[in-house]
Amino acid sequence: MEAHEAQFLYDRVANLIAGMIEGGTLRAGDRAPSLRALSSRLGVSLSTVMQAYTALEARGFLEAKPQSGFYVRPRPRSELALPSPARSGSNPRTVRVGGVVDTILAASQQPHMVPLAVAMPDSALLPVKALNRCLARVLSRQPNASIDYCFPPGAEALRRQIALRSAPLGGEVHADDVVITSGATEALAVSLSAVTSAGNVVAVESPVYYLLLQLFERLGLRILEIGTHPELGMNLDALEAAVDRNDVKAVVSVGNFHNPLGSRMPPEHKARLVALLASREIPLIEDDIYGDLHFGDERPELARRFDREGLVLTCSSVSKTLAPGYRVGWVLPGRFHTAVLHAKQVASSATTSATQLAVAEFLAEGGYDRHLRRLRRAYQSQLEQMREAVAASFPQGTRVSRPQGGFVLWVELPGAMDSVRLYEQAREAGVSVMPGTLFSSSGRFRSFLRLSAGHLWDRRSELAIATLGRLAHGLLQGH
Amino acid sequence: MEAHEAQFLYDRVANLIAGMIEGGTLRAGDRAPSLRALSSRLGVSLSTVMQAYTALEARGFLEAKPQSGFYVRPRPRSELALPSPARSGSNPRTVRVGGVVDTILAASQQPHMVPLAVAMPDSALLPVKALNRCLARVLSRQPNASIDYCFPPGAEALRRQIALRSAPLGGEVHADDVVITSGATEALAVSLSAVTSAGNVVAVESPVYYLLLQLFERLGLRILEIGTHPELGMNLDALEAAVDRNDVKAVVSVGNFHNPLGSRMPPEHKARLVALLASREIPLIEDDIYGDLHFGDERPELARRFDREGLVLTCSSVSKTLAPGYRVGWVLPGRFHTAVLHAKQVASSATTSATQLAVAEFLAEGGYDRHLRRLRRAYQSQLEQMREAVAASFPQGTRVSRPQGGFVLWVELPGAMDSVRLYEQAREAGVSVMPGTLFSSSGRFRSFLRLSAGHLWDRRSELAIATLGRLAHGLLQGH
Repeated sequence: MEAHEAQFLYDRVANLIAGMIEGGTLRAGDRAPSLRALSSRLGVSLSTVMQAYTALEARGFLEAKPQSGFYVRPRPRSELALPSPARSGSNPRTVRVGGVVDTILAASQQPHMVPLAVAMPDSALLPVKALNRCLARVLSRQPNASIDYCFPPGAEALRRQIALRSAPLGGEVHADDVVITSGATEALAVSLSAVTSAGNVVAVESPVYYLLLQLFERLGLRILEIGTHPELGMNLDALEAAVDRNDVKAVVSVGNFHNPLGSRMPPEHKARLVALLASREIPLIEDDIYGDLHFGDERPELARRFDREGLVLTCSSVSKTLAPGYRVGWVLPGRFHTAVLHAKQVASSATTSATQLAVAEFLAEGGYDRHLRRLRRAYQSQLEQMREAVAASFPQGTRVSRPQGGFVLWVELPGAMDSVRLYEQAREAGVSVMPGTLFSSSGRFRSFLRLSAGHLWDRRSELAIATLGRLAHGLLQGH
Repeated sequence: MEAHEAQFLYDRVANLIAGMIEGGTLRAGDRAPSLRALSSRLGVSLSTVMQAYTALEARGFLEAKPQSGFYVRPRPRSELALPSPARSGSNPRTVRVGGVVDTILAASQQPHMVPLAVAMPDSALLPVKALNRCLARVLSRQPNASIDYCFPPGAEALRRQIALRSAPLGGEVHADDVVITSGATEALAVSLSAVTSAGNVVAVESPVYYLLLQLFERLGLRILEIGTHPELGMNLDALEAAVDRNDVKAVVSVGNFHNPLGSRMPPEHKARLVALLASREIPLIEDDIYGDLHFGDERPELARRFDREGLVLTCSSVSKTLAPGYRVGWVLPGRFHTAVLHAKQVASSATTSATQLAVAEFLAEGGYDRHLRRLRRAYQSQLEQMREAVAASFPQGTRVSRPQGGFVLWVELPGAMDSVRLYEQAREAGVSVMPGTLFSSSGRFRSFLRLSAGHLWDRRSELAIATLGRLAHGLLQGH
């Protein structure tokens, strides 16, 4: 079945059931129609119904009971609709970002600002003591190791730990398959350098993380922005059409908890994506930096799992889960190992030795999974509180993403409101946000905002969202 | 006076005095002709004579006695001639380095190899304990600071220390003028990114450090290799002719202890270089990574000192003096501050927090200068022993640089010997060296070698040089 059709059917199933609940046909506690019944009644596959139900569960409409089926949950508190999926651009665009992002980043780092702009974990949520203990232990046990160069591909002890954690998610991975970088930013930069040249066309999800846009600009790449569903990720029909029409040299995808959408690409879509690109020999750069921050029970797989050709380059780091300031990231570069290693060598040569060894130590100790469980609960609850606060104070018609992981919200403002003006007014009021224009090369998200819920939710955050709501009401009334 | 003429006169003075000593006219203990007398006798400026005498002192012919003048020293043990200065290329060349350097670097890192290839300080020479103590103190005093992002331009405490040390050498420098990078490699990469675009022409000293060649290749820059004197640095007449003939967009210079020559560009040359480029609005990227490792009494100035236009970008790091594995480097980007900050943001965003703070702490404590004195003595003695060993075992006709700082030697082999074959045979014998071909885009240094004397000199080093000498003799005899 074509993915376009699949997505259409998925939306149809989800909307049908959501409508039955909202219209009162199905009430709290009722059992939803069985998968099999619905599948045969609507003539769609079981897996499509399953996807729709899983999404409805994430939205708070349904809950799954083991061995029994799906049941209607008590009415969810927030009833905000999802943002509209972006349409796909049809022609490659030259990227011009300029210094806007730098200005916004600099402003958002002022200490008096409520920091809702940068996607940064609150250090209160991170295992600061345990990590610093690991680092101190490295210094005393191997005093020279922290002083000496640790040249690419990086510390073997760390590469082994990364391989151990990646293999269950991404197929066979050995320590020798890992190249350590200075954070995920450098991982993406060297991966793009390794597989593209200036002037090439790259396809990417829309909206797209502003740092990727900056990278595309720096490398002289032209981009095709592919429409992306707020729950299912990249529209693969649109991608297929795009790679058929254009000489696309690489695809960049944040399949697991897309930034800023929070969408999760289902495994079948990842498999289709990889197959689609394999048949055309197009490399896929997957950014998995948010992958460990899933709100569902299962850690989502990597697209790399479906790769038989070595065409997938997986990038990640510990910056959203352990220690942003350690600058420990990596690439699993598949068949592009030599090129990625070379690009890393030229970009910054060695990576900091002591923090690599400290992360290896921390991962080997085994406390990472326990930490992640706590961290995921915290992010989920912070996001939920932020969504509720947006629902309570933003104008009617505001639409908000329902992230399935990570810690950012994507907000669509009503009435074609100008988020750049909202950003400016918010900055004056001491609240830093990211206007949606930063997430496209075409200015298409002018009425969107990205909000980070990485910081502990407190009275200050509440007031900040209320301030944003008040400003948005003002803009809607033409102030 | 034209620099070409000045260089010619300088060589004439130096050769005259060296000839008088070698011919026996001047003997050990004799006072050399006074500066003033020689200046008026030869009709050259006092400063030219002074430069020639300083160089003869560095070569071991003369020694200066305070308030008295220059005296002939006992015959220096090694009598190796200096390598021939390279001629300047006349047309911009596209750089093709490929993976050769990566292969050589990887091979040289095998633990059984005597490491004469990579310019890497021996950790036995570095203040490992004091640095690790600073790092541990940072962790316990500011536990969150090492975990949190430290975004560009980097930690204020470190930028202040760098400004304090740079100002006496490079004119006014404030903490706000400093951008921290992940080592000098990244400093050079972001500086080049900030002032050039693919296809541009850049002028650089010849021979040129292989990492710069890799960077030029990666950025798609074409280069003009400018002949460089083994003691005085870049030939400025050749540079002037080159910038007159070509649309040169930037010049890269390692004025203080050039890698691999060990030359030091005199202050008047730096002043002329800066003025030459200022009148044409061409940025100068100066790499000062070896500047603190001077064997003369005075720390050489930066070219930046002569800059009135903000056109000089100074790059450096602590990788050759304190801690290669800390990955702490910086740029003083002059008028290109915004562009360099942006390039750094896109290349790898934040730099490791803990090691920045540890270096700031170490510099603030005040032990750096004492450490440097010891380190310079060690490098100088290691280089001297290596030169003696080369003199003792390499074939007659071998020429060797006389570094005025740093810790690498540049060796010219006799009889157009192929250093790539020597490199290969040495690798088989367990000795890693850098063949001269890596130091040009034109293959012109095929009969040169770079040897690093960064490691403590011991019996193993002695045997390694003897092995190289034996192999060189073999190659000369056609084996």
